[in-house]
Amino acid sequence: MAQLVVHPVGSYTFGSKPPKHEKDTSTQAKLERLKEKYAREGLRRSVEAVLVVHEHGHPHVLVLQMGAAFFRLPGGRLRPGEDEAEGMLRKLSSLLAPPAENMRPDWRIADVLGTWYRPNFENLMYPYCPPHISRPKEVRRLFLIALPERCYLSVPKNMRLVAVPLFEIYDNISRYGPVISSIPALLSRFSLTLA
Amino acid sequence: MAQLVVHPVGSYTFGSKPPKHEKDTSTQAKLERLKEKYAREGLRRSVEAVLVVHEHGHPHVLVLQMGAAFFRLPGGRLRPGEDEAEGMLRKLSSLLAPPAENMRPDWRIADVLGTWYRPNFENLMYPYCPPHISRPKEVRRLFLIALPERCYLSVPKNMRLVAVPLFEIYDNISRYGPVISSIPALLSRFSLTLA
Ligand SMILES: [Zn+2]
Ligand SMILES: [Zn+2]
Ligand SMILES: [Zn+2]
Ligand SMILES: [Zn+2]
Repeated sequence: MAQLVVHPVGSYTFGSKPPKHEKDTSTQAKLERLKEKYAREGLRRSVEAVLVVHEHGHPHVLVLQMGAAFFRLPGGRLRPGEDEAEGMLRKLSSLLAPPAENMRPDWRIADVLGTWYRPNFENLMYPYCPPHISRPKEVRRLFLIALPERCYLSVPKNMRLVAVPLFEIYDNISRYGPVISSIPALLSRFSLTLA
Repeated sequence: MAQLVVHPVGSYTFGSKPPKHEKDTSTQAKLERLKEKYAREGLRRSVEAVLVVHEHGHPHVLVLQMGAAFFRLPGGRLRPGEDEAEGMLRKLSSLLAPPAENMRPDWRIADVLGTWYRPNFENLMYPYCPPHISRPKEVRRLFLIALPERCYLSVPKNMRLVAVPLFEIYDNISRYGPVISSIPALLSRFSLTLA
């Protein structure tokens, strides 16, 4: 079985950095921008990171929270032609690395966890490309990140980074959406060592 | 990315063989037997197989149907001390191989897809061991099976083997239960080649 070493949340030091504002302030605006970009650039490729820590013996996932009830994974849109793994690390650094270059965490991509498809200019995504959809509008790859034993993480001031236990996100689509709430199942093929 | 070659459902020949009756005729009876066995043998280890085919361009999972609305994956309980992979192939053969030894399909285990835990003598299973459960009652491993390009499959007369499209089982816990309905997400890390 695949292995992942997971460290306690307390072994990471969390700081803050200047806010990173979302380009869009509503779902409607986000879908509009996706549509416009699609017309110019075609398929949107995006990446998201799953960072795992543990607390009182149970794995937790690090999730970015904005406002009371909007949760997202660290990640974002790839540039045209950008390599997925490189883009993933660029997005991670942009969102969570301390501003000082020499404090960048020694994180690395451990594995692919899954792939989600957006068939239409709508909010729905699926872990497969639905039948009769030959040109999905977005393909999102989920990567499992191996965190070092200790590191500094800097969180944009307009977001919180919260450690959410697997039992809280499991089967909780209404709060976390279909991608995040699938993470417990996606991680279940790993033998996790809580170091 | 991990690869899986998937063949059309039409490349398999389905026959039937004598019925294989479930040892238990109700959920209540099943949980009672689990409890009795647990007292004697401890943790139940079980295995289940995910077999993937395609039809009109969309992946389908082969699921055993009994009655109108009971669905299960091919698999079952390991013997004490039995190797997981060996037990998986034994259960697959018992349920789906033709009776003639020389017609046994050349299937092989492609990968581990996930692990489910039953914390109590109850019907609920989770893709993690819930906090404060030090001794789960059952651990079930899901294996992805690579099917050969063609083969014969023999289905016990009291069951049907149905090819269910991913879009039908996705997010359909009420019909298929939490394990089967998680399969689309679990498969989404594979690049499927529909051969
Ligand atoms: Zn906690
Ligand atoms: Zn606790
Ligand atoms: Zn079909
Ligand atoms: Zn069709």
